[in-house]
Amino acid sequence: MSIRYFGQSARLSEAVTANGFVFLSGMVPENTEQADAETQTADVLAQIDSWLQQSGSSKQHIVEATVYLADMHDYAAMNRAWDAWVDPQHSPVRACIEAKLAKPEWKVEIKVSAVQIK
Amino acid sequence: MSIRYFGQSARLSEAVTANGFVFLSGMVPENTEQADAETQTADVLAQIDSWLQQSGSSKQHIVEATVYLADMHDYAAMNRAWDAWVDPQHSPVRACIEAKLAKPEWKVEIKVSAVQIK
Amino acid sequence: MSIRYFGQSARLSEAVTANGFVFLSGMVPENTEQADAETQTADVLAQIDSWLQQSGSSKQHIVEATVYLADMHDYAAMNRAWDAWVDPQHSPVRACIEAKLAKPEWKVEIKVSAVQIK
Repeated sequence: MSIRYFGQSARLSEAVTANGFVFLSGMVPENTEQADAETQTADVLAQIDSWLQQSGSSKQHIVEATVYLADMHDYAAMNRAWDAWVDPQHSPVRACIEAKLAKPEWKVEIKVSAVQIK
Repeated sequence: MSIRYFGQSARLSEAVTANGFVFLSGMVPENTEQADAETQTADVLAQIDSWLQQSGSSKQHIVEATVYLADMHDYAAMNRAWDAWVDPQHSPVRACIEAKLAKPEWKVEIKVSAVQIK
Repeated sequence: MSIRYFGQSARLSEAVTANGFVFLSGMVPENTEQADAETQTADVLAQIDSWLQQSGSSKQHIVEATVYLADMHDYAAMNRAWDAWVDPQHSPVRACIEAKLAKPEWKVEIKVSAVQIK
């Protein structure tokens, strides 16, 4: 039993590995200025790629995703970025709900879990 | 390490198995016409039964559930369907919040994870 | 494969263990009378400590947390209680969204998963 932390601060970690899984924090966009929901989603997915790579996994090993949209009217825009990114042979389970996020400029937050491969 | 997919589309899978667990997508009602929250919840729970069966698990092996209600006033109605369905000897952990869902006719979405048994 | 239940009722369990993990129900405050969000969060975190202890884990072994706030304006108040409680060497991944909860007097609900250690 060992737990490893990646991108750790005193409050939270960006990624944690345990028992063969990688857990990622809810990722939010880094660049929000004039960014629409599709651009923000691509930004979030790029961060997910990066943290999965750092913690020994990849988007091909994601098992589940929860998508939080600040406005459900952005559902199609989010899906355009998602569909362009997800590996169709390794598409995870997913839930998507509307929820107000911690900062008003964030249009999307995505939280995933994956299988650790190394 | 092997991941299996059930009900897979290019965007998402209905169920994924990995490391001894089954993960299910957030299940939403298939029949919403004139269906109240109790009926929609029973619809959702029947789909959960079906996907768990297809992926080698059962409702007796669910470990956690998150219930998203479009209107928290439907909490009692959701629980009537839940209580009639859940195995009281194998009741999972649960959270329930109100959240706007992807389609306005959906009153409830439920996401579960379970232990894989075969 | 064995699943154990803690604080089980016919509807749900407060904690479930399986495959080396502990899953906890979304914990809500027990004492809400005149309690602000910081006090309610500390109340919730104390319950998390208790259920983790009963199910063979601890806050040092939490891997992920989802924080549901009834009002995102309580984000700083929630974090004051969180930061005073979390072990900075073992900070989990986290997501935080605003969501209406099952009872209007609840300002916060937190759901965690942890590694089981005994």
